[in-house]
Amino acid sequence: MTGVRSAAVVGLGLIGGSVARDLADRGVRVLGYDRDPATVRDALRDGGLHEALGAGLEGVEKADLVVLAVPVTAAPGVLRQIRPHAGALVTDVGSTKESIVRAAEDAGLGDSFVGSHPLAGDHRSGWSASRTGLFRDARVFLTPTSRTTPAALEQARALWAALGARTEVMDATEHDRRMAAVSHLPQALATALGSLLGEEGLRRADLGPGARDMTRLAGSSPEMWAAIAADNARHLSAAVGAMRARLAALHDALDARDAERLRSFFEEGHLWVATDFGSGQRQ
Amino acid sequence: MTGVRSAAVVGLGLIGGSVARDLADRGVRVLGYDRDPATVRDALRDGGLHEALGAGLEGVEKADLVVLAVPVTAAPGVLRQIRPHAGALVTDVGSTKESIVRAAEDAGLGDSFVGSHPLAGDHRSGWSASRTGLFRDARVFLTPTSRTTPAALEQARALWAALGARTEVMDATEHDRRMAAVSHLPQALATALGSLLGEEGLRRADLGPGARDMTRLAGSSPEMWAAIAADNARHLSAAVGAMRARLAALHDALDARDAERLRSFFEEGHLWVATDFGSGQRQ
Repeated sequence: MTGVRSAAVVGLGLIGGSVARDLADRGVRVLGYDRDPATVRDALRDGGLHEALGAGLEGVEKADLVVLAVPVTAAPGVLRQIRPHAGALVTDVGSTKESIVRAAEDAGLGDSFVGSHPLAGDHRSGWSASRTGLFRDARVFLTPTSRTTPAALEQARALWAALGARTEVMDATEHDRRMAAVSHLPQALATALGSLLGEEGLRRADLGPGARDMTRLAGSSPEMWAAIAADNARHLSAAVGAMRARLAALHDALDARDAERLRSFFEEGHLWVATDFGSGQRQ
Repeated sequence: MTGVRSAAVVGLGLIGGSVARDLADRGVRVLGYDRDPATVRDALRDGGLHEALGAGLEGVEKADLVVLAVPVTAAPGVLRQIRPHAGALVTDVGSTKESIVRAAEDAGLGDSFVGSHPLAGDHRSGWSASRTGLFRDARVFLTPTSRTTPAALEQARALWAALGARTEVMDATEHDRRMAAVSHLPQALATALGSLLGEEGLRRADLGPGARDMTRLAGSSPEMWAAIAADNARHLSAAVGAMRARLAALHDALDARDAERLRSFFEEGHLWVATDFGSGQRQ
């Protein structure tokens, strides 16, 4: 990879581990850290990691690229801890971007930091789930700070392009607002529905395909999602509020046995899908 | 089919049409009606229908079996209109069962009526979507009235068994309460989420696989769902209320930035899925 001889990856789970493996595959020397010593041992053994960083992340200053791949609520603390060399790109892989961008600015890393949010991963987690090629054809949102240099942004683009991903630059606040709607709210609804069905004594095996689709996300890591929800509380709160308002209107229409409002309610959602299908999207 | 020489099918859409085709395939003489004359013509041409009933459903008295396959809000009115012969089984195929069972009792058909709810069908509708074998391996809930005779219940079981389905007898009120949770609430959530995303200017094509799963149901027929919601308003209202309470609690936890409550929220849903996976169900 152009210009990157060594990279430091902090956190060797599914995403961080896959970044490490891809970089190692491309001839980059990979330094890395994980709070779990067994993960570090496995990564060194598997060849995705060449050198372990110290518990205080000593050695980061040797890297041309620093990738933070820890939970979103832990990332700002890690960022404050590191002292990368001048010209090194610092990025992360978290699902929320406002707080990490702010933390980078506060830590004096505004010039060299670009937030990354790769839309990749699955229900599995940990180093053992990581693999090369995870980011091939994935979308990656890039969120610069108010001071990111054009050179740093270009480095970030080049990094993800080398890993096969398509990048899209977006304001961090706009990113988090959008993710609250398209990702965090759906996750919260699947979770709430699953809990509610469980309380009713119903099991997932009792459900038809529609309700299964509606609760599949509930199986995702609660630790990860609690961290994302906490970090994106402001925008997710607004999205949950908007959903509560819609359900309140539905509740009223049901209690009033108002056929016309019920019809409008279902028609609005149907129209949204139908319009999109008309644009050539079938799934 | 044992004992059934002729059947009257009222409503020749996806479900009614598929019942008609299956019965005709099994040597039953099929009489039928649809409010759309073109549908009746197509059904007569395709061989799924042998004889058209009059607009007042004259001719129903000749049938050993009457199947109502009209929207759930229209079914009680149709039931009041017909005069089947003594010993003929009367059933329906609606997604809600309390109101049709009550209507059968009120119409003096309590002895010979058994409600049926086949869990079959897809996003398509109309005679052209109907097909033989639609009910093979499907689950069918049977809901007797307070006066259904053992003979009538056995006829209903035999009917669906002949079409390849597995039947399960359930109280009509229990059925509607359960469907509100496992089917009608998920439908309402998918619809509300789709509308909300549309209002945010987002298209279905912008979504990842998780959010697509969560909005797929929104594409279903708004007419059908408005009718189901209206008919099952009491139970769906309770389910929507329970969901609103969960979202209110989540909203509070977000606004309080309460990491512990957020974690509990996501853990509860995760546990429900994990427990079920443990029981051998993977999807």
